[in-house]
Amino acid sequence: MASKIRLGICGYGNLGKGAESEITRRPDMELAAIFTRRTPPESVRVRSGVPVVHVDDAAQWADKLDVMLLCGGSATDLPVQGPDMAKRFNTVDSFDTHANIPDYLNAVDAAARAGGHVSIVSVGWDPGLFSLFRLYMGAVIPDGQTTTFWGKGVSQGHSDAIRRIDGVRDAIQYTLPSEAAIDRARRGEGAALSVREKHTRLCYVAVHEGADTARIEREIKDMPNYFAGYDATVHFISPEELRANHSQLPHGGNVIHIGQTGGSNRQAMELSLNLGSNPEFTASVLLTCARAAYRLSAKGETGAKTILDIPPILLAEREPEAVIRELL
Amino acid sequence: MASKIRLGICGYGNLGKGAESEITRRPDMELAAIFTRRTPPESVRVRSGVPVVHVDDAAQWADKLDVMLLCGGSATDLPVQGPDMAKRFNTVDSFDTHANIPDYLNAVDAAARAGGHVSIVSVGWDPGLFSLFRLYMGAVIPDGQTTTFWGKGVSQGHSDAIRRIDGVRDAIQYTLPSEAAIDRARRGEGAALSVREKHTRLCYVAVHEGADTARIEREIKDMPNYFAGYDATVHFISPEELRANHSQLPHGGNVIHIGQTGGSNRQAMELSLNLGSNPEFTASVLLTCARAAYRLSAKGETGAKTILDIPPILLAEREPEAVIRELL
Repeated sequence: MASKIRLGICGYGNLGKGAESEITRRPDMELAAIFTRRTPPESVRVRSGVPVVHVDDAAQWADKLDVMLLCGGSATDLPVQGPDMAKRFNTVDSFDTHANIPDYLNAVDAAARAGGHVSIVSVGWDPGLFSLFRLYMGAVIPDGQTTTFWGKGVSQGHSDAIRRIDGVRDAIQYTLPSEAAIDRARRGEGAALSVREKHTRLCYVAVHEGADTARIEREIKDMPNYFAGYDATVHFISPEELRANHSQLPHGGNVIHIGQTGGSNRQAMELSLNLGSNPEFTASVLLTCARAAYRLSAKGETGAKTILDIPPILLAEREPEAVIRELL
Repeated sequence: MASKIRLGICGYGNLGKGAESEITRRPDMELAAIFTRRTPPESVRVRSGVPVVHVDDAAQWADKLDVMLLCGGSATDLPVQGPDMAKRFNTVDSFDTHANIPDYLNAVDAAARAGGHVSIVSVGWDPGLFSLFRLYMGAVIPDGQTTTFWGKGVSQGHSDAIRRIDGVRDAIQYTLPSEAAIDRARRGEGAALSVREKHTRLCYVAVHEGADTARIEREIKDMPNYFAGYDATVHFISPEELRANHSQLPHGGNVIHIGQTGGSNRQAMELSLNLGSNPEFTASVLLTCARAAYRLSAKGETGAKTILDIPPILLAEREPEAVIRELL
């Protein structure tokens, strides 16, 4: 048995906690330390009991980690941490601000090459597994249409927007794929659908006593950008019910590719994910890619890659011969 | 625009014909010649009008082809042609005799290395896309069960077995996934299911006039290995109806992976394929892998690989930057 892959977790929110828990399911990995921006770092209580280190002291861990899992957010954490950490560690991250991925990839690539490390950026399920599937399906059946649906899943931004309405005490918003739109995509008419046509919005709202629910419902449904133009449903429930039934972070979605070969032979492919915990699933993808980053680095490769660049067999725990025998 | 990838097709059955037709949908490829064992080769009429060459003269085409698509069968053609052609060409094939894949891979690998070529073996949808998905899903959520279902699709072997029964004029047999078994797999109980429990058999049979249909149905349902122990349904129809409604070669299936993260969060993934033409779909996967074989060879790589070894981005027609921008 080779020695275990030594991992660090940078950022201890939902994603970092998911990674901490999922490492225990992987016999070839071990958690070495958790890195935080909070001061003092010892104030952060972590379930695994590993050392908690201030992120400014991460450099001292350069020889003690094989891969650093970057579990910060895409808005402000990763644009700085991604390139910064790639100078000193092999890294994986879930950067998902779609329009900025090419620039981010370039910045991390330059840092990783300078530091002699491998980074795998923007992994998770979308971008991530859904991206892989879009690539495979479109490459195999080029004469076709690929449509992606998201949900059922919680949108934090939309939940917050409802919470800002006068009289609202708490709220949660689920994005759901529209069944009618999924049917159209399965008929091969997905390319014509807008994001708005593809999804509906389901809101659970707890209000303060005496609040005007009719007015609140109207304000939600008319809210520009967030809800206007969408098929939105609003349910008013008690704060207790909201807490009891809507505190999970499920998500998922479908990628549907409908194409044809020959004169008229329909070729239909569909990937669906139904995730009980979005952060734990995303953490699981990060861990799987950390294994590939470690192996690529051990081969002497450097630079930033996406999951689309990774030979799939590098993701498997077992030896290639066993994988070919059992999974091919 | 780079020059097109020049392809040869070896074997002109359903798969070879599918490849011939699908090449026309790929702007970066062109068909150079079709190779056959039939004598004289000119007796084979091909739709594309390219030269038809006897397979013994293939060596003369070594400088005129970038990749040879091996479209023969796994039982007798490929075990010989695979290693033989890999000495002279980059190749792709759909070798699918599962138990023999490791030996076949080794034989082709030795030949490809000796010849300085790249071969991608055992591609299609299973082995192929389904294998990829089994690998990705099991690697991401290791605490789970993967179950594969096949069908609805024609089984040639089972159709032939029915045709050999006395009184039977013609027959076709579809393998179907059992809905009850799919439900169990979706509940995470897939590992307990036998192949027999996972699939049902649907038979359409045309008989000679005066034949004893009750006896024929009994003989089918009691046939050891083929039907005994399966949930089998037999419909007697006219030869005309059989020809009119059952002359296509559809296939497909599902890969279901149900696992968990954290304490009890269910993580469910499912890939489903519904293929109007099995040979055209398989041919499309061969073509897509031919692109990767060509690119790997151009980089100086040699040897035999499986689809599990191929960086996905090498399968896409477009440049990596465009793929990352549009699909990631």
